Amino acid sequence: MNNEKGLIFACDLQDREKAIEITKKVKKYIDGVKVNYPLILSSDINIISKLSRYAPVISDFKIADVPHINKIICKKAFENGAQGVISHSFLGKKSLEVCREVADSYNSELFSVVEMSHSGAEKFIHPKVDDLCELSKKVGVDGVIAPGNDAKRLRKVRNLLGKNLDILSPGVGFQGGEVENALEAGANFIIVGRKIYRSNKPKEVAKELKDKINNF
Amino acid sequence: MNNEKGLIFACDLQDREKAIEITKKVKKYIDGVKVNYPLILSSDINIISKLSRYAPVISDFKIADVPHINKIICKKAFENGAQGVISHSFLGKKSLEVCREVADSYNSELFSVVEMSHSGAEKFIHPKVDDLCELSKKVGVDGVIAPGNDAKRLRKVRNLLGKNLDILSPGVGFQGGEVENALEAGANFIIVGRKIYRSNKPKEVAKELKDKINNF
Repeated sequence: MNNEKGLIFACDLQDREKAIEITKKVKKYIDGVKVNYPLILSSDINIISKLSRYAPVISDFKIADVPHINKIICKKAFENGAQGVISHSFLGKKSLEVCREVADSYNSELFSVVEMSHSGAEKFIHPKVDDLCELSKKVGVDGVIAPGNDAKRLRKVRNLLGKNLDILSPGVGFQGGEVENALEAGANFIIVGRKIYRSNKPKEVAKELKDKINNF
Repeated sequence: MNNEKGLIFACDLQDREKAIEITKKVKKYIDGVKVNYPLILSSDINIISKLSRYAPVISDFKIADVPHINKIICKKAFENGAQGVISHSFLGKKSLEVCREVADSYNSELFSVVEMSHSGAEKFIHPKVDDLCELSKKVGVDGVIAPGNDAKRLRKVRNLLGKNLDILSPGVGFQGGEVENALEAGANFIIVGRKIYRSNKPKEVAKELKDKINNF
């Protein structure tokens, strides 16, 4: 992705057909579709290859296991057509490195979670953001996940990372973040789910978001 | 489970039929079967209900997301017949609490990861074991996951938890741990995967492990 800007659709639905239908509707306005376990567990992993017809798929598995398990999880995502996977970085260097190796072998991308904004993140995640960013840079991720609804933390992550890594930011829309604030604070890619898929006009909402990003 | 002792089969295979076949073979000697994403992503979530015919299933999803996503992941596991789920605790209180709530609504069990032994765990996990145990107790998990191949850390976890919570310990077998050492250090349930499913005689291996546990 490399420092472009764009919109990623968080397809957190639990209905396979609805997920396909909405992704198809918004495909013109999105640069990627993020697929998480709610959808995978409601259908199966083939949904990745199905959705990748409409946009590059990022498997948001928030991988958080020991290295030999992480390796298999990554392979499953890429074998099924994912363009990128999201891993936690909290499990340490080796667990993230195996994800990097598998991503490389599929010529695909790795993103790591370095910051979160939900209630509870203050206990273990926030105090470690410096180390999580440093580790992610060392392992050579393509980008990181950091919240778009907390400009102060997002700006800190951008400062810690420098300019060369992408930041993908959820938290815009239902969770209160604004596109412009997130971009201003250092995000490249804005991740939006509920605001799009809960709308009666997902295409219009996606277009509006994409326009905002383009016009920033 | 509550302070019994027992053997849990970590069914980390990627072949659905083989997974069923081996679980069937060892069912007499196991107290549970732990299912992780390698198997789920290689087949689908129905494998949980299939395996639960032979032993109670623990979904080892190492859940590590924001609360509203964790909730859905837990539901998927229990809806499909899991008796327990494993969640990380480093995501903080709220993320673990929603897992507890869903587990309660299915009259099922919640286990949290409080310690790990892979290379990399020293960076973020080890220094926080006290807080992760405290949080897990506060949320009211039924038990925790802590490594069976590191007696010192396991003993520490047992001391932090007190006597009333179960400890489920992986790391015995291929990862170098011994059944007796893990039980001695405070584990109740020994989790064994590769040593069983990579054996030509999984039944005999499971029996031997179960005997060791019973005779401890």
